[in-house]
Parts: sequence; structure tokens; C-alpha cells
Amino acid sequence: MTKIQDLKGYSYPISPEGKSSVVGNFPWHYGTEYLVIAYRTDPDEIAKWLPKPLEPGIEPDVAYVAFSKWWSVWDDMKDMPSIMPERTQYKEGAIWVGCSYQGTPGQMCLPIWVDNDFSMARGWFMGFPKKLGQVQITDYNPLNPAMNEVGIGSKFTGIVSSHGEKLIRGSLTIDRKISRSEMPKPIGLPLFHIRHFPSIVAGAKPSVLELVSLGSENWTWDEEIWAGTGELEFFPSEIEEHMPLAPKEIIGAYRYRNGYTFAGGKVLHDWLKEE
Amino acid sequence: MTKIQDLKGYSYPISPEGKSSVVGNFPWHYGTEYLVIAYRTDPDEIAKWLPKPLEPGIEPDVAYVAFSKWWSVWDDMKDMPSIMPERTQYKEGAIWVGCSYQGTPGQMCLPIWVDNDFSMARGWFMGFPKKLGQVQITDYNPLNPAMNEVGIGSKFTGIVSSHGEKLIRGSLTIDRKISRSEMPKPIGLPLFHIRHFPSIVAGAKPSVLELVSLGSENWTWDEEIWAGTGELEFFPSEIEEHMPLAPKEIIGAYRYRNGYTFAGGKVLHDWLKEE
Amino acid sequence: MTKIQDLKGYSYPISPEGKSSVVGNFPWHYGTEYLVIAYRTDPDEIAKWLPKPLEPGIEPDVAYVAFSKWWSVWDDMKDMPSIMPERTQYKEGAIWVGCSYQGTPGQMCLPIWVDNDFSMARGWFMGFPKKLGQVQITDYNPLNPAMNEVGIGSKFTGIVSSHGEKLIRGSLTIDRKISRSEMPKPIGLPLFHIRHFPSIVAGAKPSVLELVSLGSENWTWDEEIWAGTGELEFFPSEIEEHMPLAPKEIIGAYRYRNGYTFAGGKVLHDWLKEE
Amino acid sequence: MTKIQDLKGYSYPISPEGKSSVVGNFPWHYGTEYLVIAYRTDPDEIAKWLPKPLEPGIEPDVAYVAFSKWWSVWDDMKDMPSIMPERTQYKEGAIWVGCSYQGTPGQMCLPIWVDNDFSMARGWFMGFPKKLGQVQITDYNPLNPAMNEVGIGSKFTGIVSSHGEKLIRGSLTIDRKISRSEMPKPIGLPLFHIRHFPSIVAGAKPSVLELVSLGSENWTWDEEIWAGTGELEFFPSEIEEHMPLAPKEIIGAYRYRNGYTFAGGKVLHDWLKEE
Repeated sequence: MTKIQDLKGYSYPISPEGKSSVVGNFPWHYGTEYLVIAYRTDPDEIAKWLPKPLEPGIEPDVAYVAFSKWWSVWDDMKDMPSIMPERTQYKEGAIWVGCSYQGTPGQMCLPIWVDNDFSMARGWFMGFPKKLGQVQITDYNPLNPAMNEVGIGSKFTGIVSSHGEKLIRGSLTIDRKISRSEMPKPIGLPLFHIRHFPSIVAGAKPSVLELVSLGSENWTWDEEIWAGTGELEFFPSEIEEHMPLAPKEIIGAYRYRNGYTFAGGKVLHDWLKEE
Repeated sequence: MTKIQDLKGYSYPISPEGKSSVVGNFPWHYGTEYLVIAYRTDPDEIAKWLPKPLEPGIEPDVAYVAFSKWWSVWDDMKDMPSIMPERTQYKEGAIWVGCSYQGTPGQMCLPIWVDNDFSMARGWFMGFPKKLGQVQITDYNPLNPAMNEVGIGSKFTGIVSSHGEKLIRGSLTIDRKISRSEMPKPIGLPLFHIRHFPSIVAGAKPSVLELVSLGSENWTWDEEIWAGTGELEFFPSEIEEHMPLAPKEIIGAYRYRNGYTFAGGKVLHDWLKEE
Repeated sequence: MTKIQDLKGYSYPISPEGKSSVVGNFPWHYGTEYLVIAYRTDPDEIAKWLPKPLEPGIEPDVAYVAFSKWWSVWDDMKDMPSIMPERTQYKEGAIWVGCSYQGTPGQMCLPIWVDNDFSMARGWFMGFPKKLGQVQITDYNPLNPAMNEVGIGSKFTGIVSSHGEKLIRGSLTIDRKISRSEMPKPIGLPLFHIRHFPSIVAGAKPSVLELVSLGSENWTWDEEIWAGTGELEFFPSEIEEHMPLAPKEIIGAYRYRNGYTFAGGKVLHDWLKEE
Repeated sequence: MTKIQDLKGYSYPISPEGKSSVVGNFPWHYGTEYLVIAYRTDPDEIAKWLPKPLEPGIEPDVAYVAFSKWWSVWDDMKDMPSIMPERTQYKEGAIWVGCSYQGTPGQMCLPIWVDNDFSMARGWFMGFPKKLGQVQITDYNPLNPAMNEVGIGSKFTGIVSSHGEKLIRGSLTIDRKISRSEMPKPIGLPLFHIRHFPSIVAGAKPSVLELVSLGSENWTWDEEIWAGTGELEFFPSEIEEHMPLAPKEIIGAYRYRNGYTFAGGKVLHDWLKEE
């Protein structure tokens, strides 16, 4: 007779072989390519997304939009790029804000759209409230006779759309190379996220509602970090809530690449245990 | 200061307005159109998916594949069909098996693929282990001079594919009209599902791992139920686990439509509380 | 040795078996479901799309947007709905205007977006300048406990988007049943289209540039034609040209279904033979 | 009054501004990344696709499958990568064979699938019989802690699927670096293609049916060309014709990148002017 322990897999479907999980167990290994536009918005609107014990960040009006390309594998399936390439590649568009937990500055991902189901599911496990969307990001191939190397003067655009609506469009026109430390916070701060999974019982509290911190290790950086002039526009939607976070002032725009490993998070607070 | 109770919405993202939830709160109202092929497979393979306290069904080798079209709304957004039509329409392909809980016969959905993110997420909340896929289902428009009304002699095909692989193909050639009671079990039995949500802490048990029953009410049926000859083929995959459930013998094939309301489920067993 | 006559198929790829054509030979048989919003716009902008010997229509400022669902087969592959269902179903969004040829009133399809490659290609053969897009159209299933039958008071919305941009949104709120003759022209008039296929030689004229009329036969109509209040909005785009055709005044909105056969067109004028 | 010359644009829709063309005028500039598996198949099957005056190539049984990523712009819209990124990126999967015209060895693209409408249309103008499909290609980001640089030992896989069917899967396991001249013909030979556009008149010949050669210039090469062991598998389809071209023996597998400009083709033969 089958016992619950006989069902394998980190995530759905938990199954006899555990091979068909939409996402395999961490450690998860990531390579990235980022196009980021940092900006100021209404700090009261940011604060509305940060429930106690979270508090606003040091600069409570700073947010950024990140358009990003991802190359990822889970540790027990490192061959996935040559088995099923589409299970290792995706693009995202997201709004990030600063926050703070017990005096430690951090950041949180607010609305985020991604173009692959496994990344959407993995996001949920990590407290990213992901929906599906389409993400376009400028890419140059310097072998193309009409394209140049990435560098001063080149322009990058990111566009995120979902359910037929363009939601956010941003761009960077590069004017200099910078060092990592020149990028504004909250870029690079620790991640504090809300993990949420609803109950299926009428009137019940959610089944999961906890504040977590997400660790990372094995960091590698492409030291070529570009900065320049940013543009950023938010577009109204019938069903999304990004408009109150629309930009009031652009701080800067950046392009960078890095890699890291996620090996697990920590539960900082369980709202279900509050009375 | 923001309190957790200030964040609204049944599901991600829990947000200031609660308007952008990928899925709104139940009651959820459904209309359906089903193409079903019932078949026999290896009962030991079915049993591997049914952990104690679940047990195999009365006919432990019977399964069915359902290709289905859905029209759905959540109760607090009944205007969604005219606000954002794609948030109310989707198609699925799934493998269902019989099971039993404390002597009550029921059924469980095993692998299932769906073509819309909100349905994938809602499935997870209800214990459906959904992934994204593409689902094709024959549809006839009798105004087309080369198409007939649905009826004796017409043939319906369903195909489910995902990440570039064709996984299941089935068809029905109609030869008679039947009554609802003529469809074989477990079609129509209560749903017993495993809700699962992983932890993000290394080495920890899942955050949710519970057996639930899913209620339904407000049933309406299109009394025109068609039956006939079925065909069913499973195709190998690099990453899926449906092949051990492949058909050994076809029982029958059916086409029917109904509607109902889901108003909540019940937790029957919490595996996390087993020691 | 292979002769050109040995290559079979109505369209690409012309091949040894002719089975893989993206579109098979006409007769083509269609069933439809239309959501239409008729409106007035700047007649000079319409006229810019109508080259001599075409002339503006009788009411030179009338246009309509049609959101439509299609069920189609080519005559030599009538089994396609049960072989490969997705080769027989698609949705479109289009802007139509009135025109006239040698005193015969007609209509022409201007920008049009469709969600399936075979329909895009077939459109080109018929002089529809199709691009790929996503089309959402309200659909109700009356078995859903929260949905009603189509009828007075029900609202239908169509949305067309492409390359991540929402382009057009329109809706109908039904307030009455009408007869076919009550729909405004140019709905229902003959089609006059420009067939165009570019040359691949630098500086050369197009390879095809001809005015055609498109016939139709075997008409069937669902006599249930609904009318009511229309809404229509055009949205700006980085790369499209629909904005000059945006509505100034709504004439009416309609929902209807029909079917017909296309058995070939006629060349009315060849611009390449003008000197 | 509007004259045909007032309508602008290289391709559909020919329009008042010419800005909405699905493809702008050449010169077209390309950057590429190729994964290629060269193989032998039945020479009689290749010959069936090569109508007189084309003849089989020197090695009449050699073909190759190319999975490729593309970065392209048309000359009068070089800013497109930062205006609408998705109009400049696409992926293809194709079967290529050798051929010969009046003693000049060349090559022709047989079935080909691409994931973007503008590339499908442009292909048609150049005599590529493109359909829409999904193309997956392995990609590594060396900043990912679990991924390596491209090099000896790394494995690349390409998969092409369309309308829910996996059609071709190939892979390369790199074992050496080579020079360009070590790649087998017909890779790198001139392109001889059949341009075809059907008539819309019943019983008529096609409107375009011509043999063209496609030029190229401004070649740039990434001198890092990798070779190694190839694998290649073709899968049956309900509607495609690639199976007769399935591999009998693998010759080799390659990965390379280049760039070039297409500035126009030449018509070599017009089948419509034959007797």
C-alpha cells in the first residue's frame, strides 16, 4: 500500500518517480542578465504593500523595475539545458521596493510577470507573487552588421505585457561604466518575502502566510556594469494594481549580469500564529 | 502602518486593493464541455499515486482521460467575461483515476495540463497538480457548409501537448445518445485531492500536505450526452510520468456538458500531523 | 528527374506529397461568430487606403471593427477538425471600410490580426494584410450558474493585441434582436481586396499587385442577430497605423453568426500593367 | 484621390505611412547562432524536392538540420531593437539540402519552422516555406554556478515542434574546435530557392513561381567554431512531410555564429514562362 512518503518530488505533481515535478528541489542555480530602472514613487503606496513586522526602507520612496533574462537549473537535474532547453530559460518583469525587518534593510518583489510556468511556480514557493506575462528585452548580436557591441550609446528597452495589456515599458541609454557599489539601494539588499497559499475551506485563514528571508551564495559577477539615462512608463490595466507605484522621478538605469545559488530560506514570522 | 489584514485578495499577489489576484475568492462558477475516453490500465500503477488513507477504487484499473473546455468566473467578479474575456476561458487535458476514502468511492486527478495561468493556480489551491500545456479539441460550427451538427457519426479529437511534446491524443466517434447514468465510474464521483505546497526551508517538510474533498453544488446538465467508439494513445516524454498509466483497453468514449458551483472543500486528513 | 509539376500543394511548402501545405486549395468552407462595432471616422483617412480604381464608399466615413471566431476547412481535407483541431479554429480582429469599384459598392479589410499561421497565410492569398495577434472575445456558457443565455442585457467585449500592445477594444451591450437588413453597410457588401507580394530583386516592382473581388456562396445564417449599444477604443502603438482610423462616433454594435464557401476570386485590375 | 503609388511599405499592409509593414524593405541585417547536425538520407527523397532546372547536389544524399537564433533588423528601422525588441529576435528549425543550378553547387531550405510572424513572412518573400513552430535551443550562461562556458564536453540540443507535435530533435556534444572550411557542404553554399505565391482564381497557375538566388554580403564570423558528436531524430506528424528526409547516418554536428547583410536576390528562372 502506498504511503505518503512514497510520493516523490519537491513540487506538484508529487508522484511515484518524482521526475515530473514542475520544479525540482533546491539548490537552484541561476545566471542572469538585468535591465533595471530605479525611480522614486509615492512612499505611502509602497508602505501599503509592507505589512508589520516589515517596515518601509531607509529611502521609503525608492523602487525599481527589473527586466531580466534567466538561465537556471535545479541541482539534481543539471543536464536539463540539453534535455529540455525551455525548462531552463525564461524572462521576467518586476517591480521591487525597499523594506526593512527588525532594523535590517532589505527588499521585496511586488507585482512580477514571467513567461514560463516552472518559474511562476518556483516564484510562489519563494514568495514572489508571479503571474504569466510576456517580456521583451533588447538584445544585440555584434556579428550583425547593423548592431554594435553593448557599450556607450547603446539603448536597451524592456516591455512587460500580460493578458493582452502592455503594463510597463522602460529603457536605458548607456553613458558610462560603473562599479557595483554605485548602484542605488535597495538593489542588492537581502530579500524579505511573503509566502502565501490559500486554504480551500470556506472562511478559513490562508494555509501559509509567513515572512521569509531568502538566502543566496556562490555569487559571481560580470564586472561590466553599465549605467545611463533611464526612461520608465506604466500603463493602466483592467485588472492589475501597478499604477499607484508609477514613477515620479527616475534615479538611474543599469545593465548587469550575475549568477548565484539559492540553497534555502528562513521563516522570520508566521502571521497565522498571531492571535 | 500596514497590518497583514490590510492586504487583500484570495491569492497572489495579496495587495492593497485585492483586485489583481490571479484568482478571486470562491464561490467559483463553472460551465464545461467534456470529451472523455475511459480505459483500463495497470492497477498497480494507479495505486502508486494513492497514498494512505486513500485506497484504490472499486474497479482499481479504471481511469479516464478528459479533454475539456471551461467557462468560469469567481463570484465577486461576475463581469469578468466582458472585462477581460481571457480570464474566463481555458482548456485542459487530464488523467483521472478512481479511489476510495474510508469506504466512500471517489476520484482523483493525476497529471493535468491547462492553457491559462489563473486556472493553473486555482488548480493548485484545489489539489490539481496542474502544469501549463496546449490543448486542442475538435469543435464544429454547423453553419459551416462542410460541417455537421454534433451527432451520430461525428468524430471528436483531443490532443494535449506541453513544452513541445505531444503527450496524449484521444478521440470519440459518436454512435449513440446515452443517459448520464450510463457513463462508467469514477466519472461523476466525489473528488479526493492532495493539496501540497512546499516549504522554502532546507530539509523541512512541505508547508501544506493534506487530503481534501471538494464539494460542488448548483449542478446543471445538458441532457444531450453522446457516446461511441474511443481511441486513446499516450506518447513518451523526456520529463513527464504519464506513460505507466497508458491504456491497455478502451472502455468507452463520451461527450457531455454541465455546469456547477464550487463553494469550498473540506480537509479530511493532514499528513503533517502524522508522526 | 523532378519537374515543377511534380511539386504539389496549393501553398508553401510545395512538396512531393502536397500534404504539408500551410493552407490547402479552395473551396474553403467557413463558419463564423461575429462581434461588430460600426462607427464613423475621418473619411480622408479611409480614402488614403483606397487606391484608384477603387473609390470611397457611399458613406465614405463609415467603418467597422469585427472581432470574430472562425471554424474552417479546406475542401480536400474535411476531416481536419478531428485530425488536427487547431488547424480549423482561429480568432481575428479587423478594421473594415466601405469602398466602391466602377460603381459597385463594396468593402475592404484594412489592418487585421489573427492568431493562427494558416489563417494569416490564407489571408495574404485573399488580399487580407494579416499579422499575428491575440484576440479575446466574450463567450458565455449558459450551463455556468453565473452566466446567462446570450440575449438582452448581455455584454460582449472584443480585444485585439499584438506584439505586447493592446490595439483595439470594443463592446456590445445587447438591447434588441434585429433582422439582417438592419445592419448598416458596408457590412455584407462584396469584398474588393489588394493582393500584394513583394519582389526579392532590389528596386523591382512587387511581384503581385492586383485588385481582386472575392466571391462567396452556400450562405447560411443564424437568424438570431443581436444589436445594441457599442463602445470602441483604439490604443496607440509603436508600429501600427490604426490610430488615424479611430472612431469619432459609434453607429451601432451587432452579434451574428453565419457560414459560407469561398470558391475563388476574380482579378479586376493589375496595377503592374499600368504604365 | 489615392494612387497605388501613395501606398507605402515593402510588404503587407501597404499603407498610407508604410510604418506598419510586417517586414520593412531590404537590406536586411542578420546576426546568427547556429546548432547544426549534418547527415545522410535517401537521395531520391531529396531529389523529389528539386525541380528542373535545379539538380541534385554533388553529394546528393547529404542534408543538415539547423536550429538557429536570429537577431535581425531592416535597414530603414535600425532602432527596432530598442523600439520593439520582439520584432528583432526569433528562432528557427529547418532542413537543408544540397542542390545545383547550371553546374553551380548550392543549397535549398526545405521544411522550416519559425516562432515569429515577421520572419515567417520575410521567409516567404525569400523562398523559405516557413510555418510557425516552437524552437528550443540549449543556452548556457557561464555566470550560473552550475553551468560552464561553451567548450569541449558541453552538449547542445535543438527541438522543433509545431501545432503540438515534436518534429525534430538534434544534439551536439562538443569535442573539438574546427575551422570554417572543415564544415561539410552544402553548409555555406549559395542559396537557390523557389518563390511561390498562389493565385486566388480557380484553376489558375500560381501568381509567382520562380527560381531565385539569394545574395549576401558584409560577412562576419565568430572564429570560434565547435564540432563534435551529433544525434538527430525525426518524429512522425499528422500533417508534415519531413519523415522521408529522416537521417540514415550522422556526418557531424557544429555550433557557429556569424552575421551578414541580405541586399537582394536574382531571378534565375520563371516557371510560369515555360511553354
